[in-house]
Amino acid sequence: MRAEVISVGTELLLGQIVDTDAAYLSRLLPQFGIDLHYRVTVGDNQARLADAIRTALSRADIVFTIGGLGPTADDLTKETVAEVVGDEMFLHEESAERLKAFFAARGIEMPAANLKQALIPTRGRILANPLGTAPGAAFENDGKVVIVLPGPPREFTEMVDSQVVPYLREFVGETAEVIRSRVLRLAGIGESSAAEKVGDLLDGSNPTVAPLAGAGEVHLRITAKAATASQAEEMIDATDARITAILGNVIFGRDDESLEKVVVRMLIERHLTLATAESCTGGLIGNRITDIPGSSETYQAGFVTYANQAKKEILGVDEQLLSEYGAVSEQVARAMAEGARRVSGVDIAISVTGIAGPTGGTDAKPVGLVWMALAAADETIAFEHRFSGNRMDIKLRASQAALNMLRLHLA
Amino acid sequence: MRAEVISVGTELLLGQIVDTDAAYLSRLLPQFGIDLHYRVTVGDNQARLADAIRTALSRADIVFTIGGLGPTADDLTKETVAEVVGDEMFLHEESAERLKAFFAARGIEMPAANLKQALIPTRGRILANPLGTAPGAAFENDGKVVIVLPGPPREFTEMVDSQVVPYLREFVGETAEVIRSRVLRLAGIGESSAAEKVGDLLDGSNPTVAPLAGAGEVHLRITAKAATASQAEEMIDATDARITAILGNVIFGRDDESLEKVVVRMLIERHLTLATAESCTGGLIGNRITDIPGSSETYQAGFVTYANQAKKEILGVDEQLLSEYGAVSEQVARAMAEGARRVSGVDIAISVTGIAGPTGGTDAKPVGLVWMALAAADETIAFEHRFSGNRMDIKLRASQAALNMLRLHLA
Repeated sequence: MRAEVISVGTELLLGQIVDTDAAYLSRLLPQFGIDLHYRVTVGDNQARLADAIRTALSRADIVFTIGGLGPTADDLTKETVAEVVGDEMFLHEESAERLKAFFAARGIEMPAANLKQALIPTRGRILANPLGTAPGAAFENDGKVVIVLPGPPREFTEMVDSQVVPYLREFVGETAEVIRSRVLRLAGIGESSAAEKVGDLLDGSNPTVAPLAGAGEVHLRITAKAATASQAEEMIDATDARITAILGNVIFGRDDESLEKVVVRMLIERHLTLATAESCTGGLIGNRITDIPGSSETYQAGFVTYANQAKKEILGVDEQLLSEYGAVSEQVARAMAEGARRVSGVDIAISVTGIAGPTGGTDAKPVGLVWMALAAADETIAFEHRFSGNRMDIKLRASQAALNMLRLHLA
Repeated sequence: MRAEVISVGTELLLGQIVDTDAAYLSRLLPQFGIDLHYRVTVGDNQARLADAIRTALSRADIVFTIGGLGPTADDLTKETVAEVVGDEMFLHEESAERLKAFFAARGIEMPAANLKQALIPTRGRILANPLGTAPGAAFENDGKVVIVLPGPPREFTEMVDSQVVPYLREFVGETAEVIRSRVLRLAGIGESSAAEKVGDLLDGSNPTVAPLAGAGEVHLRITAKAATASQAEEMIDATDARITAILGNVIFGRDDESLEKVVVRMLIERHLTLATAESCTGGLIGNRITDIPGSSETYQAGFVTYANQAKKEILGVDEQLLSEYGAVSEQVARAMAEGARRVSGVDIAISVTGIAGPTGGTDAKPVGLVWMALAAADETIAFEHRFSGNRMDIKLRASQAALNMLRLHLA
């Protein structure tokens, strides 16, 4: 079974609002073994919408339209679908009564234009909309179906969950296949190196393995098709195990496990407290850690020692080190971590000091040079990094490397 | 001139990442009088991508593709475009050298697969990518053009701004109509209140004024069409002046002026130094301030005093205040700001303490309650807020309110 999704609305086409509906639907379809091949966005224009529906029906079995079910003159989706599939709609009395009751309850007379919202297909099915005035519809024709859904996200998701899911189950029948996927999240490795290392696995057709560069990290997506969900999961588990055997500790998490989530969990499990001392990252590491609910169990304090004065007075970094080696140096990174650990009385402190740019770089210490350190009871370790990109990239990459340093220390 | 945008990537098609690139481009095109009629998303599949490009070329003059320029086997966009328009690509020596240098600088040998990124069209133009290894390209054929752009948002926006804008200006030539827009950015007011206050202006057809809720702030977008850019700008200026007369100080900036950018500029202009003391925002305020280049001129130090112990020992908050009023109270917010100002020796310190949730709320102090204070030489002021949303929303809204408190103090 192949599907295509058509989102309707000029504000979507122009990028003024984000199309969360289409994303929601896209994530649902694999569960029914339905392949989504195209997603199309058109403005509120009847000719172009009709063209998009015709094209979609020529290459897909199930076409979804999202939006354009309102009462105004530029809401034309249902009329256009009916025209393309040659369906004479009729007035659904129950929906018309619901509409009238909706307006009566608000003490307003129903504008005549609203009545068109109660039109439903002759061949097909109405999809009830408990949260709004515009019912959806499934127009069936020639073994294919066009499923017409409202745009407002709350109405959309309710209709998908309560109406479309059972409809699809019936329409698709017993499906030949189910699709499942899993994302492996990597730190401390680039996209092409990761791809090279798991090279052979990238050629597989089922499961497939695809590399993807995310924000400051690389992802590998494993996707499997099988007759049942448990078979698909087994196939994913096997490929996951093969990749894990190759990449090992470079994999820090799966699916929605961010690096900060993993690190906070490890710290709490080990009953360790944490402090941060940040210079060039400016609070980003503390911010990421405190995005995780429950992080207050481990995270005690953070220091953003942006000025040298602050490094000296707040963390007790020796004046001598700053003047001899400079603020961006192994010595100062170590002193910051040790100072933060001492001042806040925690088990582990991490520090970052670097040059985020765009100015402030020299030949010896270019923009992107970052030193970081970790101070624990028994040792202090330090690492040098050279990151590329603009100020925000360097901050993000430095925060990622610092969290990864902490993860590897805890592992 | 008609355009169509094709976004390439299975992760986009499946809704796993949001297509900010296409939205960025969609907002740009009207400035060149280019109409966007369709946006299409396809997965990493060569046959379907070729089909989408052919369909797009049949109905548009300018086709943009986004994504699929990486070095791996499923990055196929450039090859596919070349095949559809019948262009034999050749190896661009300069780009090949840049690629080799990029890897050499990192001490890694370039994987052979990466060399394909240096292929460029025979008929058309290379679009340089200063921020990445994959150049873009404009494939010209039969009076039409396919503009091939990279997916990573940072590389994409840089290439659009520095390469595509001048290319389009040349390709499109003199257009009959110019569209310009400006965003007024508001703080401390909700979307519906803002819309109500400027109500009459929302009905205009040229310029149009549209309210839009952004991340933690409300925007009003003014859009004008005119024969020339300067006429459009004049129309926008007039509407801007009318809205400013109504909303006044609620407007903190225009277009890309974020609240942190405005605040850092004001502090530097007034030669004032700043420190932050954060509890529930966990470093977010410091992070936002240090996103601004040059912020080190004013920002000296930040304290993330997440634990009560840290509030006492690092900022000198009185044990008595914590036990009598609790960590989330006017008294503790004031003591945190005054402590941060004293410890770091700055002119102004701001503090935030609140309950970001999801747990930790009580009837008296629910999730979303946030106290903030500002300590200056002559006074300390404090404010109470109640924010809704999840943990991240509350952190963001609290940081926005704290920066706005600082802005209004400096105004």
